[in-house]
Amino acid sequence: MTEPVVPSARKTYLRGSRPDIRVPMREVRLTSGDAVVLYDTSGPYTDPVQQPDVRTGLPPLRELWIAERCDTEPYEGRAARPEDDGRRAERPGAPALDGLPRRPRRASGDAVTQRAYARRGEITPEMEFAALREGVAPEFVRDELAAGRAVLPANINHPEIEPMVIGREFLVKVNANIGNSAVASSIDDEVEKMTWATRWGADTIMDLSTGRDIHTTREWILRNSPVPVGTVPLYQAVEKVGGDPAELTFDVFRDTVIEQAEQGVDYMTVHAGVLLSYVPLTARRKTGIVSRGGSIMAAWCLAHHQENFLYTRFRELCEIFAAYDITWSLGDGLRPGSIADANDEAQFAELRTQGELTKIAAEFDNQVMNEGPGHIPMHKIKENVDLQQEWCDGAPFYTLGPLTTDIAPGYDHITSAIGAAMIGWYGTAMLCYVTPKEHLGLPDRDDVKAGVIAYKIAAHAADLAKGHPGAQAWDDALSDARFDFRWEDQFNLSLDPDTARAFHDATLPAAPAKTAHFCSMCGPHFCSMKITQDVRRYADEHGLTDQDALTAGMQEKSNEFKASGNRVYLPLSPGA
Amino acid sequence: MTEPVVPSARKTYLRGSRPDIRVPMREVRLTSGDAVVLYDTSGPYTDPVQQPDVRTGLPPLRELWIAERCDTEPYEGRAARPEDDGRRAERPGAPALDGLPRRPRRASGDAVTQRAYARRGEITPEMEFAALREGVAPEFVRDELAAGRAVLPANINHPEIEPMVIGREFLVKVNANIGNSAVASSIDDEVEKMTWATRWGADTIMDLSTGRDIHTTREWILRNSPVPVGTVPLYQAVEKVGGDPAELTFDVFRDTVIEQAEQGVDYMTVHAGVLLSYVPLTARRKTGIVSRGGSIMAAWCLAHHQENFLYTRFRELCEIFAAYDITWSLGDGLRPGSIADANDEAQFAELRTQGELTKIAAEFDNQVMNEGPGHIPMHKIKENVDLQQEWCDGAPFYTLGPLTTDIAPGYDHITSAIGAAMIGWYGTAMLCYVTPKEHLGLPDRDDVKAGVIAYKIAAHAADLAKGHPGAQAWDDALSDARFDFRWEDQFNLSLDPDTARAFHDATLPAAPAKTAHFCSMCGPHFCSMKITQDVRRYADEHGLTDQDALTAGMQEKSNEFKASGNRVYLPLSPGA
Repeated sequence: MTEPVVPSARKTYLRGSRPDIRVPMREVRLTSGDAVVLYDTSGPYTDPVQQPDVRTGLPPLRELWIAERCDTEPYEGRAARPEDDGRRAERPGAPALDGLPRRPRRASGDAVTQRAYARRGEITPEMEFAALREGVAPEFVRDELAAGRAVLPANINHPEIEPMVIGREFLVKVNANIGNSAVASSIDDEVEKMTWATRWGADTIMDLSTGRDIHTTREWILRNSPVPVGTVPLYQAVEKVGGDPAELTFDVFRDTVIEQAEQGVDYMTVHAGVLLSYVPLTARRKTGIVSRGGSIMAAWCLAHHQENFLYTRFRELCEIFAAYDITWSLGDGLRPGSIADANDEAQFAELRTQGELTKIAAEFDNQVMNEGPGHIPMHKIKENVDLQQEWCDGAPFYTLGPLTTDIAPGYDHITSAIGAAMIGWYGTAMLCYVTPKEHLGLPDRDDVKAGVIAYKIAAHAADLAKGHPGAQAWDDALSDARFDFRWEDQFNLSLDPDTARAFHDATLPAAPAKTAHFCSMCGPHFCSMKITQDVRRYADEHGLTDQDALTAGMQEKSNEFKASGNRVYLPLSPGA
Repeated sequence: MTEPVVPSARKTYLRGSRPDIRVPMREVRLTSGDAVVLYDTSGPYTDPVQQPDVRTGLPPLRELWIAERCDTEPYEGRAARPEDDGRRAERPGAPALDGLPRRPRRASGDAVTQRAYARRGEITPEMEFAALREGVAPEFVRDELAAGRAVLPANINHPEIEPMVIGREFLVKVNANIGNSAVASSIDDEVEKMTWATRWGADTIMDLSTGRDIHTTREWILRNSPVPVGTVPLYQAVEKVGGDPAELTFDVFRDTVIEQAEQGVDYMTVHAGVLLSYVPLTARRKTGIVSRGGSIMAAWCLAHHQENFLYTRFRELCEIFAAYDITWSLGDGLRPGSIADANDEAQFAELRTQGELTKIAAEFDNQVMNEGPGHIPMHKIKENVDLQQEWCDGAPFYTLGPLTTDIAPGYDHITSAIGAAMIGWYGTAMLCYVTPKEHLGLPDRDDVKAGVIAYKIAAHAADLAKGHPGAQAWDDALSDARFDFRWEDQFNLSLDPDTARAFHDATLPAAPAKTAHFCSMCGPHFCSMKITQDVRRYADEHGLTDQDALTAGMQEKSNEFKASGNRVYLPLSPGA
């Protein structure tokens, strides 16, 4: 796992105001000797100087920052229970990590959220770190956090993360979902799922494990994850009550939140907006309730004829979230699961309630994101962002796709990359990826990569369309390399250098082809880019850089051009 | 090549006003016994009753229709020349087809274009055929053709095609580019490239061959293609003059157009808008001129200091196009090749000239499409359609992508599917596909399929967003199948049933899993769709279909629900 992301890339660090603020970046060396510096999510694994050991976890980068604030205290923490590792846990659990766990910390008084600090006007090392990554002023990050227009997910019990910020004024982010196997195979395998996703650019990951060893696997991931980790605590809570939604109680849910808070989960999806009265609104839908969390809470509401306990006891959860700095990801349990159900009454009823909850969470200085759909045809996408931004006071929107058609199972990374790019342009702050296996099966390694790459494309296309400062420099660097036939630079600047190189090899495998001034599309005898280069050179040499010059003395120039042998193409070599 | 598109699909035909109007459709039989009827581009190859023989070509469906109009005449045609089959043609050519060629036809008097007939108020069998495919009235097709807002590419020498219509009021179409190998291997192999693309949904194909056996390969493709075939005659013309753009003459170009017109090419890309004065506008671009045709004409203009002969002698070409019913695809030789160059002066100068040429072609009753970009960031896409529609009098726009970012070589089917879906929604009539190998190498069979599928997704997403009548019925049928766990129906209704089935097999290979009421995402013990079905059934049984009913008697219902064992999930079987 210590191989660099691309052969010619190396890890570099931006220095902050104190020695322990070192922001990792991916530096791509060009053949010219210049370098292009790109945002990097891959963590210490791609730094050859560091040798992360998955059994002891990553170095706790933020430990000192947290301690220095003197507003948290270590405590004994909740005692582990057999059911934490799965519904029955009749087996011995998976191995624990060496030398861990640390004792968990919690707030000793007021809220310890980044939002609380921002509201007090403080710039934390986390904010400065995230600002350096984005290339913006730390004050700007602070102000966006204070206003609730951005979040910086950073549980005080997850000191290993490299801080990052999510908000519409920043680079569009990508989340990758991973889940454990039926039986956790090994620490290496589980950690590998996370490092594989972040290697290709996932900004956060969600651990959606539901099977065995759920607690232990999460511990492995958190201790080794340089990116924020999200979960859906409801999944584990329902396992603790034998899989029966009706048996859920607030106490079991609360216990699970505490368990995960102490482990260091950075953000949690909570379906607090699925109200009893909204459930019947889904009965006439084409595809009803497709969210797992949404259906669990709907089942609970129907079974008890009571209001969703996540809603009625939301303020108690806000207090917990404030004490660990857990970021809300308010779930969209009633999101549409088909084009037919897009933007319907059930969906928007829940979104309004998300807005209500967003305001309550703000009272507790909690950080809040809102989850969004789902399946939405293109012409109905913008309305989603506009309403979410209006009703939820500009909180970061975090959407799953959306998929823009239902007819292409096997290709939903593409149906949804279309929607994701558009919704990102319209203002969504983070895009939850969809893999090619969506609706069909469990994603394997290739599917995870395909999903992350499709979503990095969507996120970057959105950054370009939003005019994010610096976004186009990457495109420009790659297009310059393309136009100059610097093939190696073109590969190395790609989102996926391995695939770009392999595809070029497929047609022109020989090493000299990597420096050839042509490509396989037109071959060596004719090349439009070559012609343009000749046109440009000719125009330069003869001052033909504007229309006037051309009109004025063009006949003469034309004669010179002919005399030089019309060198606008590579002449066909005899017999070739 | 006679295998049906999908196992459960069968060819069906819609009957028109006369017995020889039989419009092929793909009928997907559902497990319920119902059928979903979809647009079909795959031609006679997927009809088990027909056994196309590639050596004799497809039956000439339109032959009688053309003859009945009594406005064309067969003639001797241009004599074949050695250089027609490639630059040097020192080898014996590839084998000719059996029993062909027919003698070519041309107009005996006035224009024989579908537009000319439409302007006279006539509804041709071709128009009726296309109307039946689209599910609209033949009069509507006629009126759109007459207005120049749609084209029906149908060279009178390509009687084998199944007529189709391209225009913003119709289903968004997809073009796939194919090109010959360095040396044509066999008729079967060359025809296979075309049938493979149309099997997955390509509405037209362009033969961009530049190598050897160029004339013969085109003959093979035309005689076996049920979809309109486009070319860039300039590619062959430049081969005829030894590959040197400066040696091109109008006569050589004209000769090539006649050669291809007699073979039956349905639409031709002609870069008549690349004017001498526009060439210097590209000199300061990031990526100059990236169109092959554009760079050839730019080189010619610079070499001769003369205006582009395709522009100065455009009316002569219009007369030829009128005599065979060739549709213009006015090339965008100065399209941007990078995000940096999007929507620049060079691009829009050429678009204005396209508008001028579109009006001239209309004088000759020619059918006209306008080609468009290219590389365009999302926020600049709409302007392209708006200006094209304004300047070109609503003529069909035909765009390459556009790619919405430059940073993902190896994934440009995705970077461009995003732009293609959007530009289709905004009004583009046909999308030219981009394969994963774009910028890197020559597409193989898998790349062609990946490109076509990505573009069928884009086109259908656009149809949905435009509210095209009937588009959503397909999504609804698939979502219904998904919600009901009718796995086989879900596969069979997919754009790519093979991949959908294979992905499901990867996680749950056993045959019973194809009828299982769960999927691998949540497993048999928990399923959100299952819960929703139970919620719906419960709501149905208890009249809980609106909020009032819920509020009124919910406590009682809740008790009944509990008494029935909270059956909103499949209980965990012991030991499982």
